[in-house]
Formats: sequence, C-alpha cells, structure tokens
Amino acid sequence: MRRPTIVDIAKTAGVSKGAVSCALNGRPGVSESTRSRILEIAGRLGWAPSSAARALSDGRAGAIGLIVDRPALVLGTESFFMRLIAGVQDELRDGTTALMLQAVDDPELELTTHKRWHAERRVDGVLLVDLRRDDPRIPALADLGLPAVVVGGPMAPGGPPCVWSDDAGAMRDAVGHLAGLGHRRIARVAGPEDFVHTEQRSAAFAAAARGFALERADVVHADYSGDQGAAVTRRLLSAADPPTALVFDNDLMAVAGLGVAQELGIPVPGRLSIVAWDDSPLCQAVRPELTAVGRDITEHGRLATALLLGHIATGAAAGLETPGAALVPRASTGPVPAR
Amino acid sequence: MRRPTIVDIAKTAGVSKGAVSCALNGRPGVSESTRSRILEIAGRLGWAPSSAARALSDGRAGAIGLIVDRPALVLGTESFFMRLIAGVQDELRDGTTALMLQAVDDPELELTTHKRWHAERRVDGVLLVDLRRDDPRIPALADLGLPAVVVGGPMAPGGPPCVWSDDAGAMRDAVGHLAGLGHRRIARVAGPEDFVHTEQRSAAFAAAARGFALERADVVHADYSGDQGAAVTRRLLSAADPPTALVFDNDLMAVAGLGVAQELGIPVPGRLSIVAWDDSPLCQAVRPELTAVGRDITEHGRLATALLLGHIATGAAAGLETPGAALVPRASTGPVPAR
Repeated sequence: MRRPTIVDIAKTAGVSKGAVSCALNGRPGVSESTRSRILEIAGRLGWAPSSAARALSDGRAGAIGLIVDRPALVLGTESFFMRLIAGVQDELRDGTTALMLQAVDDPELELTTHKRWHAERRVDGVLLVDLRRDDPRIPALADLGLPAVVVGGPMAPGGPPCVWSDDAGAMRDAVGHLAGLGHRRIARVAGPEDFVHTEQRSAAFAAAARGFALERADVVHADYSGDQGAAVTRRLLSAADPPTALVFDNDLMAVAGLGVAQELGIPVPGRLSIVAWDDSPLCQAVRPELTAVGRDITEHGRLATALLLGHIATGAAAGLETPGAALVPRASTGPVPAR
Repeated sequence: MRRPTIVDIAKTAGVSKGAVSCALNGRPGVSESTRSRILEIAGRLGWAPSSAARALSDGRAGAIGLIVDRPALVLGTESFFMRLIAGVQDELRDGTTALMLQAVDDPELELTTHKRWHAERRVDGVLLVDLRRDDPRIPALADLGLPAVVVGGPMAPGGPPCVWSDDAGAMRDAVGHLAGLGHRRIARVAGPEDFVHTEQRSAAFAAAARGFALERADVVHADYSGDQGAAVTRRLLSAADPPTALVFDNDLMAVAGLGVAQELGIPVPGRLSIVAWDDSPLCQAVRPELTAVGRDITEHGRLATALLLGHIATGAAAGLETPGAALVPRASTGPVPAR
C-alpha cells in the first residue's frame, strides 16, 4: 500500500487538488463544510505531510538528537541512559518531534556526527551529556548555531543552557552520614576523571572531607563497569589501613563492590559501609539494600527536552536548576567497626 | 553560521551553480579536475545534501525505527534494550542511516506511531521486539508495505524475517543442569505471559520438566522489575513444599530473588539454587555470582539491523537463525538440599 497523496484525497472527495491543498494548509478558497469533509477524508486515508516536504517548507527536521559516548557494554548495564531516554520520550509523547539516538565510542566521532546531523538537517537541536573540561562540543555547536541543552550541567557563563542540580549538598549529606557513624577513612570510587560532573563531585567530596575533618579521603577513578568497580574495591580493601566506607559513583560499581566485600568475607555494614550514587531499583534488589544518593533522572530528561524544544521554538533558553539529589539511608551503612 | 549551500560552493570555486550540481551528483558536464576541486571545496565547507532534499529525490528517509513498549522504570533497569541498541548502532556506524527511537506505554500507541512514521516518511523500515500472540503489528506493517525485521523471532510462515535463536535447547540445558544436581521441584519466574518468547520458553520449560521427570515445575509471571521479582520469589519460598531451584527470565528479577532468599536466611546455593536469563555483568557483580543463560544480545541487534538494511535495499530478506543461548554455570547453583 503506497502512502495516500493529495491526489487520492481529491479523488475521494470529488474536488480539485488545489482545494485539498487549501484545506490542508488552512488557506482560504474552500468552504468550511468542504474543508471539514476534506480533512475527514485525509484522516480516514491516513494522510500526513511527509517530514521531508515539511522540512523543506518550514526548515524544521522535527527531531532532536542525543549522542552517548560510552562503551556498548557499559551502556547496556548502566540504568542512567535508559532512564534519561524514558524522560526524553515522555516529553516527546505528542509525537510531533522524534529522537535521533546515536552511540559512539570516541568524542571525535560525536563531534563529526553533530556536524553531519546539522548539515543534513536531521535535527533541530541536541541534548549533551557528560560534559568534559574544555569540551570541544560547546564551541563547535555554537559555531553551527545548533540549539543545545546540557543535561547535568554545570552552567558556564556564555555556555548553553543546562538542566542541573547541585551535587555538593548531596555529597556533604553522604559524607556527613558516614562521619556521623564514626567513619574517618572514606574512599570514593568515582567515574572517569575527565567528566566535569566527576570533577565537581570530587571537589565536593574533598570539601566535605575537610568539613568533617576526615583522616583519609581518597578518590580513585573507574569506568562505571562492574569489572572496574570490583577491581578498584579489591585494591582499596587489600591496602594497609583500608577505608571503612566507600562511596561509589553509580549503582553497578557499588553492587560489584558489595560482591567483592562478600567474597573477601568482609561483612557489610559490619566492617564496611557502602553508599551508591545514583539510586536505582538495583540498589534495592541486593542485600543489604544499598544506602544511595538519588535524583529523578527521568525527570531530568523530561525537563532538558522541554528546555530544548523551547530553545528551538524561541531561539533562547535559560538554564534550570532542579532539586538536588537526596541521600536515602538503607542497610549498607552502619557504625564504624572498632579497630 | 548557516549551512553551506550549492551557491556558496559555486562562489568559492568560481564556477556556476549548474557545474557544482553536476559535480556533486556525479553527472557529466564538468572536467575531472573541476569536479575534484568542487568536491574538495564542498568537503571543506562542510556541505552535505539535506536529508529532506534527499528524501524527496530518492524517497529514502535514511532512518530505521525502533519502538519499545515497556514502562519507563523497567526500561531503565533492564540491560536488554541498551545492549540491543548498542548492536543496532554498531551496524549503523557508517552514519548514513539513523535510528529513530520511541518508548511507548501501550501496544495501540506503538501501532499508531508506526503508521505515522511511515506516512511522514520518517523511517525506511522498523525493528520489532516483544512479539505477542496474534500481534496486530504484523498485518498492519504488511498493509503499509513497511519493511520490518523481528528481533528474537519466532519465524512465522508468511511473517516478516526474524533474527532468532532456539531457546528450547538452552532451557533444556538449564533444567538438565539443575536436575543433575538432584533438584525435583523447580519454579520458573517468567516475563509477561502475552509475549511469544515467554510462551516459547514456558513450553520448553514444560518439555524439559517432562523429559527430566520433575516432581513440580510451576511457572509464575512477572514484569521483569526487581519489585515483582522479589514479590514472586517471596511467595514461592513461603509456600508449603517450596521449590529448591528458581529459573528467572531476566537478570534483575534473579538478583532481587537472591536478595529475598538472603533476607529470609535461605542460603544460596545451600538451600536454594538460582539461574538467571539473560546473562549480564550484573549476574557477575553479585555474590554468589549467578549461573545464567546467555546470548550475545548486542550481536542480535547488529544482525537484525543488517538484515533490515538489506530488506530495505532489495525488498526481500530471509530470516536468520543465530547460535542458541548457552548456560554459564556459576556459584548460585548447587546440589539439592537434603529434605
């Protein structure tokens, strides 16, 4: 079955092609009753303007883009992106704008893809995630004039609008929770070092460590995978004078860290406390359930998309600060063990 | 910066618009040296044919579609879809075809979206997942003439081509592994009842139960979430004469089931054996590591995409059977406990 055309509608309605065109484009030249009849027939036949024809006439692609730069294996196990995408989809639920998704495995390719999407008029704007220091995407997208919204911030003067939340407060709460339980040696198993959000959380961790006068507050970096989460935990726990509490940067590394502790016969929280970040159903599926820092990631995706659509429509957008993440104490954190 | 046009290229090259058009479209009318120079300039300026213009000229959208019909929360915690999408992206890595992704929350809306995408010429073909009994998408897509490939099968006579693997052998292996350890009462915590793949695995489970002369082989259905996985496990383990082994239909429900067993003080595998399906890094992050049935889901996504692109290009495609899933025995399965 080929797609219905204006000619099909005209034939069915017994009117001219021009009359159909007037009716469909809201132009005068047909009576109201004819217009209604033509629209009814168009609906019944399943007619829709082709997105290609529409893009040529109004210059809109009717799509936004999201490129994620993570190894496929990590993508498939980390819930962050699917929750983010669920939020994007929720905002696009009226169906007039589509999501173009691309996974790439290096930042260079992400930049090339943005340029190609823009050149081919495939997207009207893009969402950016995982901002890096001196991120080359920011000037490149500004040069192209392609509207962009950053998910997760941070806001930079003159940079694109962001949907962001203050992680520093949540980090202070997490470290304060552990310090209140008597922990003096806390290690943070962080995400990749070159992400700005990793850097910000590390700065907040250092500040909290000073604030609570911790004895030790080391930061080690890993790639969010269970494998690296396990390897780093094993190294930390095997050191002389190991930390008594670990704060992980995602859920999978925290679960893998818990697994290593169980394997080494280190009871959680008896001899080791664990905090995960972000909170997820996975944190509640394991035993002990993991104390975690949580944000509503789906809502972040929804808000960022709403901001981007507004940016595309109006040519301007302001950033948006959302409520900070909150600590959810569960069973994986407890009093520091006696030495 | 606006997008470079043919006029910009002509101006920079000092030739006519017609000459640029000939050069870019591979038509005669310009010398080879002029063509090279024009192409070089087009490349340097970042010119690309707009996807809209291309769609009007060759009728191709340059995109394929994937609609997933799962609650957002489940989507965000189940690794299946992100691994599938990673495979799709791997096959699309040359960048000439894009992926349009949409999450919906009811099958009706999925059908409407397929029709709209087709009417608007947004996609050249679609991947279908989670086939249901008498799935209305099959006749609807056939009516539209929109190429489709089913991920996960099953092959149906006259239906769209599938990338599928035989789950029956893997189910026999899983049940055989447990029967070999002495288990006679095995329960299966399955996915939603109306998915064809759930039904096929249930049939294979029943056949294996008969083959190994099990005493009990119950099937209960859940929605792949950790919450339902935990609730169903709790119910099963609290019954009189509970099963001594559980086979779960995804990784998250298996991890949640393990958590419930630990909470109830039931040692795994001392008094309860657990098998997960599909295998994932999560299965190796928990302790004990979970015995699991695994397929290469990323490769499934890649193959299905290759099949769909061939289908779009040639108008025809044959189904493809891939190697079946394989059982990976780990620490969560052990000898049946003495009664």
